Amino acid sequence: MSQAVEADPVTTAASRDRKTLIARAVTLLLALGLWFCPAPAGLQVDAWHLFALFAAAIAAVVIGAFPILTSSVLALAAAVLTGTIAAEDAYSGFGNGTILLIVVAFLVARAVVKCGLGERLGQLAVSLFGRSTLGLGYSVFLVDAVIAPAFPSNTARSGVLFPLVLSVAEAAGVRPGSEGRQRLGSFLMFCGIASLTVSSGLWFTAMAANPLGAEIAKGYGLEISFGSWLVASSVPTLAAMALLPYFLYKVVGPEVTATPEAPRAARAALQAMGPLRTAEKIVAATFVGMVVLWGAAAHLGLDSTAIAFLGLGALLASGVLTLGDIAKEGDVLATFIWFAVLFAMSGQLNKLGFMGYLGERLAGRLGGLSPLVAGIALVVAYVLLHYLFVSQTAHLLALFGVFLDVGVKLGVPVAPFAFLLLFATNFFSANTPQGSSANLLFAGSGFLSQGDLYRLGALTTAFNLAIYLLVGTPWLVLVSR
Amino acid sequence: MSQAVEADPVTTAASRDRKTLIARAVTLLLALGLWFCPAPAGLQVDAWHLFALFAAAIAAVVIGAFPILTSSVLALAAAVLTGTIAAEDAYSGFGNGTILLIVVAFLVARAVVKCGLGERLGQLAVSLFGRSTLGLGYSVFLVDAVIAPAFPSNTARSGVLFPLVLSVAEAAGVRPGSEGRQRLGSFLMFCGIASLTVSSGLWFTAMAANPLGAEIAKGYGLEISFGSWLVASSVPTLAAMALLPYFLYKVVGPEVTATPEAPRAARAALQAMGPLRTAEKIVAATFVGMVVLWGAAAHLGLDSTAIAFLGLGALLASGVLTLGDIAKEGDVLATFIWFAVLFAMSGQLNKLGFMGYLGERLAGRLGGLSPLVAGIALVVAYVLLHYLFVSQTAHLLALFGVFLDVGVKLGVPVAPFAFLLLFATNFFSANTPQGSSANLLFAGSGFLSQGDLYRLGALTTAFNLAIYLLVGTPWLVLVSR
Repeated sequence: MSQAVEADPVTTAASRDRKTLIARAVTLLLALGLWFCPAPAGLQVDAWHLFALFAAAIAAVVIGAFPILTSSVLALAAAVLTGTIAAEDAYSGFGNGTILLIVVAFLVARAVVKCGLGERLGQLAVSLFGRSTLGLGYSVFLVDAVIAPAFPSNTARSGVLFPLVLSVAEAAGVRPGSEGRQRLGSFLMFCGIASLTVSSGLWFTAMAANPLGAEIAKGYGLEISFGSWLVASSVPTLAAMALLPYFLYKVVGPEVTATPEAPRAARAALQAMGPLRTAEKIVAATFVGMVVLWGAAAHLGLDSTAIAFLGLGALLASGVLTLGDIAKEGDVLATFIWFAVLFAMSGQLNKLGFMGYLGERLAGRLGGLSPLVAGIALVVAYVLLHYLFVSQTAHLLALFGVFLDVGVKLGVPVAPFAFLLLFATNFFSANTPQGSSANLLFAGSGFLSQGDLYRLGALTTAFNLAIYLLVGTPWLVLVSR
Repeated sequence: MSQAVEADPVTTAASRDRKTLIARAVTLLLALGLWFCPAPAGLQVDAWHLFALFAAAIAAVVIGAFPILTSSVLALAAAVLTGTIAAEDAYSGFGNGTILLIVVAFLVARAVVKCGLGERLGQLAVSLFGRSTLGLGYSVFLVDAVIAPAFPSNTARSGVLFPLVLSVAEAAGVRPGSEGRQRLGSFLMFCGIASLTVSSGLWFTAMAANPLGAEIAKGYGLEISFGSWLVASSVPTLAAMALLPYFLYKVVGPEVTATPEAPRAARAALQAMGPLRTAEKIVAATFVGMVVLWGAAAHLGLDSTAIAFLGLGALLASGVLTLGDIAKEGDVLATFIWFAVLFAMSGQLNKLGFMGYLGERLAGRLGGLSPLVAGIALVVAYVLLHYLFVSQTAHLLALFGVFLDVGVKLGVPVAPFAFLLLFATNFFSANTPQGSSANLLFAGSGFLSQGDLYRLGALTTAFNLAIYLLVGTPWLVLVSR
């Protein structure tokens, strides 16, 4: 991020080390402090001990003591070695079909980038919609929305979207720091961040946390499928998609409003790409097949994860994806590990009665409010708390179950409330640059200052919150009864 | 492998493609042929269908139709989508503690290579034992045996051992193709391959298939721990370690027998390395801690996998291992996937009664033989069948359970028989260059022709088989009652 370079790097590194050490000491004190605190009346000792480890693990990530992988692995080891949870329960997340779906889909998404299909779709959209700055903004949202259902990792999708936005910006004559078109660059780059907040909310399979949240919601009697998610998300999300580019256009105020050259550049790029290559055809066919099967999964009684495995197998067998490609995906393994660990710990916390206990206490405090006011207050609080998190999934794992529980206890109808929280889990990612790893490429592009990022992030999040509450609430109450 | 370069590469590639296509057609025909064959009387249809998929998946790897990842992923998708096995059973391998132990240990082993501790231990051994060619051979076996318990991947260990053997060979003045010292190079390189066959057998945690086999043996009432494995393996394996270098020395007949310069070169290399670096100390302390805890795990009621997670967490927290290192370990993810998939399928095959059925049939055919003769015949057959396999673990998964079952039905005592098969699973790796991925670095070094590899491989395997049967059988009968 080009704005931070001014400080002396040695001093910065030393103060970072000191800050990390302090953060680690705080984490240790927190873990020990909670652990040795007597468990509140009505709560099992194991539940309290697991909460101490889980809270310390999440706090460690929030305050920068450890990366999420280190934190979760240490918490897991502590939880099992102290006998707080049984080993087989601690490892159960690794065998969870929903988590495996995400792992496999990460690998499958690699093929879209590799074969060039992602870039082709991007250029196609620009060639059709890129005549004006506003049109370019809409084309970013459109491309993202179209490719999203096949990308359960919004981070992976940002890897496809960013080169497109960058090439669109470059086609429009924008360079970081260049005079006269700086705000055009900021607009396009923030469209990328903002688009991911809503494209991820539109489709069940467009973001890793969605099926994970659905799995948690299942515990409250809400069954969410690919189809029912789409119905619930469609109206508020399409409203947000329709209004967000215009909103950002007005807030940022790009210097240039017409880009008549962009469609031509895109057509030239498409021309240079030539006809669909065999690899692109194979990937396209595989994805269409997977999306069709995912859509029909509920009716035909097919397992979604097995469909993803079939797609992975097809791409490997065709040679589009090679063992060499998989060998580069060690970060998928890291994600798999911390994800599975935190998922299992969160699940055990719930199973041991902690969520219910916390829910009852919080519900007691919000007791006097009507379900509508309580629900809205909870959604707003849930969104604001994301300032403390660096991962959408960690936030979901830590708080979604608790908030859902409190809402249900206060009489908020479970289906609309769960969906609002799940959509919020997608759109709160924009509020800070570190709010989602999907932001990082855009935030580091050099087109957006730290100030821009926090200001536009807060505005975008507030805008989304307003739309989902105002448009989403009545729609959800209507369709999810 | 330098010996194969003579052929026209285009023709070779084309004929390889044709061979792959034929192999895939054969795999498909095999799968469909078995699937639509009526299930033999006394066997559930699901068990027969799963056998069709499992056999086709293993056959596909053996005949080169697909790599093991592709094959297992396709078999899994077919098994779940056809309803042959339930999704949760199919994914259960991912949550298995034993498999997770291997995954974590793969990552932890990376730190030994990265920090330079592996090379230091190697140079130390050479400085002590490297005065003669035979001494150099023994030093390879010694280093390997000492580092082995911390390396559950013999492939990962080969990555530490190979640079050592190569630098020893170079210190002794050997280059591929150079006149006068060619057989010295062959001797040292084959010592690497042969050493891995026995070091892997010595320690429970020295080879991924060992705990996996122990998990399968548990189903026959045999509980294997770190300690009981070591007792069982010690006498026959130390006998093999003591005799193998001398045996290979006599068979290969190196031109040079004295290498007085090697200890000095090693001391110079150690000098150049300087004192133990902080990273090496951290890794050494972590490994000692892990090995101590693993040794005490049974007594203290600690979970071995959680100990491995603790070690991983410590290495990540100390910064010896970084997220960037993990990001390069995508092949660990690939191994995790195929391993977990085949493990679960093999387990389900057993659960559905297939192994028992096959065991009864085979037992019927070997019916007249005494338990001793039957046991020996089964071990010899098990070893010979490895000519068909390119993976030790795939062999174990496919045949260990079946052979164990047959032996038990014929009255062979389960403990000595299971251990002999498990040791064989380690030592049969030498019989072909592709018999284990741990061979590949040595086989590709240019010091060994294809002829050497098959001839020395067959001799080493026969030698090991003789030692384990003659020395191991009475020892195992003595200690495993």
